[in-house]
Amino acid sequence: MKPITLKDIAHELNISVTTVSKALKGYSDVSRVTKKAVKKMAKKLNYTPNSVAVNLRTQETKTIGVIIPAIVHHFFSNVIDGIIKEAKKQGYLVITLQSNEKLEFEKKQLKLLQQHRVDGILISLSNETYQFDHINAILQKNIPLVMFDKIGKLVNCSKILIDDKQAAYEAVSYLIDKGYKKIAHFRGALKPQNSIDRFLGYKKALQDNGIEYDQSLVYICDNNDDFNNGYKYAKKMFEQHKNVDAVFTVTDVVAYGILKYCNENNIKIPDDIAIFGFSNWFMSSIVTPKISSVIQPSFEMGKKATKLLIKEIKNKKSKTPVTFKKVVLPTSLAIREST
Amino acid sequence: MKPITLKDIAHELNISVTTVSKALKGYSDVSRVTKKAVKKMAKKLNYTPNSVAVNLRTQETKTIGVIIPAIVHHFFSNVIDGIIKEAKKQGYLVITLQSNEKLEFEKKQLKLLQQHRVDGILISLSNETYQFDHINAILQKNIPLVMFDKIGKLVNCSKILIDDKQAAYEAVSYLIDKGYKKIAHFRGALKPQNSIDRFLGYKKALQDNGIEYDQSLVYICDNNDDFNNGYKYAKKMFEQHKNVDAVFTVTDVVAYGILKYCNENNIKIPDDIAIFGFSNWFMSSIVTPKISSVIQPSFEMGKKATKLLIKEIKNKKSKTPVTFKKVVLPTSLAIREST
Repeated sequence: MKPITLKDIAHELNISVTTVSKALKGYSDVSRVTKKAVKKMAKKLNYTPNSVAVNLRTQETKTIGVIIPAIVHHFFSNVIDGIIKEAKKQGYLVITLQSNEKLEFEKKQLKLLQQHRVDGILISLSNETYQFDHINAILQKNIPLVMFDKIGKLVNCSKILIDDKQAAYEAVSYLIDKGYKKIAHFRGALKPQNSIDRFLGYKKALQDNGIEYDQSLVYICDNNDDFNNGYKYAKKMFEQHKNVDAVFTVTDVVAYGILKYCNENNIKIPDDIAIFGFSNWFMSSIVTPKISSVIQPSFEMGKKATKLLIKEIKNKKSKTPVTFKKVVLPTSLAIREST
Repeated sequence: MKPITLKDIAHELNISVTTVSKALKGYSDVSRVTKKAVKKMAKKLNYTPNSVAVNLRTQETKTIGVIIPAIVHHFFSNVIDGIIKEAKKQGYLVITLQSNEKLEFEKKQLKLLQQHRVDGILISLSNETYQFDHINAILQKNIPLVMFDKIGKLVNCSKILIDDKQAAYEAVSYLIDKGYKKIAHFRGALKPQNSIDRFLGYKKALQDNGIEYDQSLVYICDNNDDFNNGYKYAKKMFEQHKNVDAVFTVTDVVAYGILKYCNENNIKIPDDIAIFGFSNWFMSSIVTPKISSVIQPSFEMGKKATKLLIKEIKNKKSKTPVTFKKVVLPTSLAIREST
């Protein structure tokens, strides 16, 4: 069955397509009686307005594209939740794509979203992205784009993020205040900005508290299997360092890997070792012992990023000059049994 | 900046738009030299094909719409992962919407997806959906639609699901084989088909093994906060039944709530009570003790549902008669410390 068009309604009522169109839009130069008849017929024929046709005229598709590293991820699925809800509120649909932490996929997906003429793009960079030609190409085309969470510092666009360095600083300072002295760090890969910043916050907290930085206490979780990274490096850490008394991890999932190793080897948390995670996954308040973590506002980040993007889309439409914004959302600490 | 069009390329090279279009598509009636020149110019001008314009001609948007109850959910985020990956492979983009378990939202979102002229729709029903006019309206319009996981038995369309009754039967039979005799069931809401089927599987396993069904051992987790439901009804169950020795839960998250209550009240798992969950969330192999669960193939379900849908889209295009399929994916049991 072909979709019902304005033409079909016009044909049934023996009036012009223009009149039907005006009637459905509530124009004042169409009589009340005609409007009512048109609406009744539209309902009877099960008419659905064709957004694609509308779009070509208005140059809008009322869709936004989102590229994230992965959707099966507590933080990102919450961000997407915030994005979809805010977009819906403002009449936009959301196309989601995953880079799987690959620069190559990220590039392809940006192209796809352009081809699809999305009105704007939200992106959280892959771990491999440390040059930004593909992003700059989008911005040069004047397509609204907002980066969130995993951003590129050198790109000139709106960004929404947390202060990873400060958040890590607070978590490690908390451990030091509690009397822990030999604190390891299970960091993320070397290039992503948030992994760098969390590491720098760890280092600065040590320095500001007169604890010497020891590079051998830093383990790099550089593949994307955080759980097994945590498990593997926990084993290595306990072999290499007998007296380590706390560990700060780049994500909660790394912490779960350590937890598993400790449980299996009868290492008591927090008596033998304290664990402080990052991102506050739902699970952290359920595992035994419950794990302390940095609370990252994920749903809110998705909502605010979407608001920012749609504002830029509207500014572009009304030819209002764009001023890029950088929004830093506050974080806090969830203190639990593991510390 | 306005997007670069075929016209711009034609203008620069002083050839016709038709020639440019044919050159980009590799038609044989355009010379190799012209093709090369057109491609070079397209690259120089940073030309991106306009999918929206293409769509009006082919009547396709190369997008599929997905409606799920919620994305912040281990099972559904894995399904979406499978959907996005398969869709990408076949050149489709995915628009995701959430019903938040509300029939009203589900209806609105189906309308939105129609207005957007998606080529097909994947849907997993909300807990409130037990009449199907809105789904049937889509099918009457000959828009390809595939239901997955939470399906409507009475709707005539393709479906992909697991055998919830059989899976529950196997889990409860396992408990009985292990010697557990007084087995409670924390079931889901009364109306969703998968909640009904899991309950029926529980009941049948008892009956087939000569254990009398006791209605007072069934607790209904009917709001959407499974974790707190588990906690709340665990308290109630231990007050009402002193000698219950196992519990089968409708989801793993309900099981985590019970686990928390047991840990807080020094009730030993599995010595005092065994717990068997459903869906096999990542967390279940990390909590202490690790929780046995029914393994539901989520990623695979997303992939297969998408394959099925795109096949129906292609059949529609080639006017091949549609035959609806019902695919039942196999489940299995993950046996862990809690049983």
